[in-house]
Amino acid sequence: MSFILTFLGKGGVGRSTVAIAAAKRLASQGERVLLVSADPSSSFDLLLGVSLSQEKQEIETNLSAVQLRSTHLLEVSWEQVKQLEAEYLRSPTLKNVYGQELGILPGMDEALALNAIREYDQSGKYDVIIYDGANSFATLRMFGIPEMLNWYIRRFSQVLSESDVVKALSPFIQPITSAILNVGWSSDDLNSNSTTKANQMLEEGQKAVSDPRRVAAYLVTTTEPTAKATAKYLWGSAQQINLTVGGLILNQAEISEEIAAEFAQIPVSNLPKTSDWLSLGQALPDFRQAVNSPKPLTIDSAKGQVKVFLPGFTKQQVKLTQYGTELTVEAGDQRHNIYLPPTLKGKSVKGAKFQDNYLIISL
Amino acid sequence: MSFILTFLGKGGVGRSTVAIAAAKRLASQGERVLLVSADPSSSFDLLLGVSLSQEKQEIETNLSAVQLRSTHLLEVSWEQVKQLEAEYLRSPTLKNVYGQELGILPGMDEALALNAIREYDQSGKYDVIIYDGANSFATLRMFGIPEMLNWYIRRFSQVLSESDVVKALSPFIQPITSAILNVGWSSDDLNSNSTTKANQMLEEGQKAVSDPRRVAAYLVTTTEPTAKATAKYLWGSAQQINLTVGGLILNQAEISEEIAAEFAQIPVSNLPKTSDWLSLGQALPDFRQAVNSPKPLTIDSAKGQVKVFLPGFTKQQVKLTQYGTELTVEAGDQRHNIYLPPTLKGKSVKGAKFQDNYLIISL
Repeated sequence: MSFILTFLGKGGVGRSTVAIAAAKRLASQGERVLLVSADPSSSFDLLLGVSLSQEKQEIETNLSAVQLRSTHLLEVSWEQVKQLEAEYLRSPTLKNVYGQELGILPGMDEALALNAIREYDQSGKYDVIIYDGANSFATLRMFGIPEMLNWYIRRFSQVLSESDVVKALSPFIQPITSAILNVGWSSDDLNSNSTTKANQMLEEGQKAVSDPRRVAAYLVTTTEPTAKATAKYLWGSAQQINLTVGGLILNQAEISEEIAAEFAQIPVSNLPKTSDWLSLGQALPDFRQAVNSPKPLTIDSAKGQVKVFLPGFTKQQVKLTQYGTELTVEAGDQRHNIYLPPTLKGKSVKGAKFQDNYLIISL
Repeated sequence: MSFILTFLGKGGVGRSTVAIAAAKRLASQGERVLLVSADPSSSFDLLLGVSLSQEKQEIETNLSAVQLRSTHLLEVSWEQVKQLEAEYLRSPTLKNVYGQELGILPGMDEALALNAIREYDQSGKYDVIIYDGANSFATLRMFGIPEMLNWYIRRFSQVLSESDVVKALSPFIQPITSAILNVGWSSDDLNSNSTTKANQMLEEGQKAVSDPRRVAAYLVTTTEPTAKATAKYLWGSAQQINLTVGGLILNQAEISEEIAAEFAQIPVSNLPKTSDWLSLGQALPDFRQAVNSPKPLTIDSAKGQVKVFLPGFTKQQVKLTQYGTELTVEAGDQRHNIYLPPTLKGKSVKGAKFQDNYLIISL
């Protein structure tokens, strides 16, 4: 299992520079590092001084790097989909569609990138994977996929099982499937088998993203007001997908009292004005210390209390709703449906307050 | 119908500043302008000096502004989906899922933003809509939706009609639909009615994006090598979704011979180092002149020639493939399936060359 590290901040603050410096430092300390760039232009190459491609390459001892290209990743994934279809269907039809024809729709970049990271992680070849996203809002959407998709599947499979359409279809499913499927399973078997595998993958992903020993983010900013505003927003938004923010890296400036106060709950480091990778690397924090930074979500079953860390937001920017058994926190243009343990599930909210950057809910 | 304008460039080059200056100038010239920000943080507000929200507000004479929030837009769209379901199904089930529960998955931001722009356009209230995306790669994915989705629907409806699954299902569709649907239509009617509406919307979108009187993009860059590399990449990538790039805006620098040569096919303007909106606005080009910039795609049926404008790429970065009747150009991490007129459709590629930033295909 790799430690997956990413950097969040406004465009132009030096996120990619920090990612490269971090990769070089960790590699020099003997960790096997993979640097993953999601920037499809040659901008990242100019910083790195190496021309990357969709095939990963070793650029220094212990340090490999790759540029993700969605067109390539989609082609590979499409072949897997076609193989799966061929296994299950007597006469597969997708074989007539070629991966080389498929264009990229919004959302595919993030889904394909997360899948690529998952595969690099599972390869066991890397101690650290550093992901440099082209945009931090999109990076948060990407790391939110397991949690969000898991919720949609849970919620809608429940709704669909109660639906007239599904009830009306079910007597027809058995004869139809046996007519077209290449396997002897009943629809129940097939369903549970294929969904179990997908569910497992999503649940593992969700567990990894919420574990700061597995995945951590660090904020990067300059002293520019717009850059600081974006960093603060990203800090709060990361909590909404259970992603721990380990600290703040202030680029090319001294740490002022104001900055230290604004980001009081996490360690703040600063980088000197230099393009020397060694000096930059030495100024970076120890990323494994992310485990000591505030956890996005703490649930105390005995006390019936849920604590949600939501820095960077005012009380007015946070909304709590409860529908049936769902407890939903809305902030940072994301909705977080909190999965409660059995002892708290279904209980009504007795009270909620927003204090010291925490939303504290009593059940 | 509005003129839709967007700015493409690396993060931090001043895209939002240019968008605001453009909006203010056009409004002062008497055009009714809507400024749409996709930045969910307060960073855009700091530049504008106004606190925006999901409800549009008039901030100056002729100038309104709005901050898109996907959580809000999804809630509104979900209500429409539920109404549609209630119209067609005897006992709708989606009514039990509330818009306030729904989280945001990758891709939703772009789909919801494009739909919002479409609705603002159709309202007839604005002469110009300026869209400031949070990230330019995502902006291109967004404007590519109509073309890409249209292709997927065309391609897969053809494949599915040949599929065993669909053939096996079709005798069951009539009895099932009449059992659960709230309307008397046959499955064919229903299918053609609902798909026609969606297809029309996509085709109108595709037509608008490829018409520089309707939609145009301008590049923004500084003299930083990484910013220039990103601008060049975005220039080429925009052509892949048939989006015309009207010109380049160089922020806070004099136009060098080198820059003028690198972007020779489009007009280059430059902005002074000032935060005065009036001076910035005066230095901006006339955006309606985008019609005079190179067209992404020119098809000469008589000569059997297809010309694709692909600036910023080398010959090695462009790939042309033909499968069956599909002609696909791959460049800029996107695949463009070229829709040929009936006289050229199905013809084999006789030759192709890459010359002066054009891919010239002979059929």
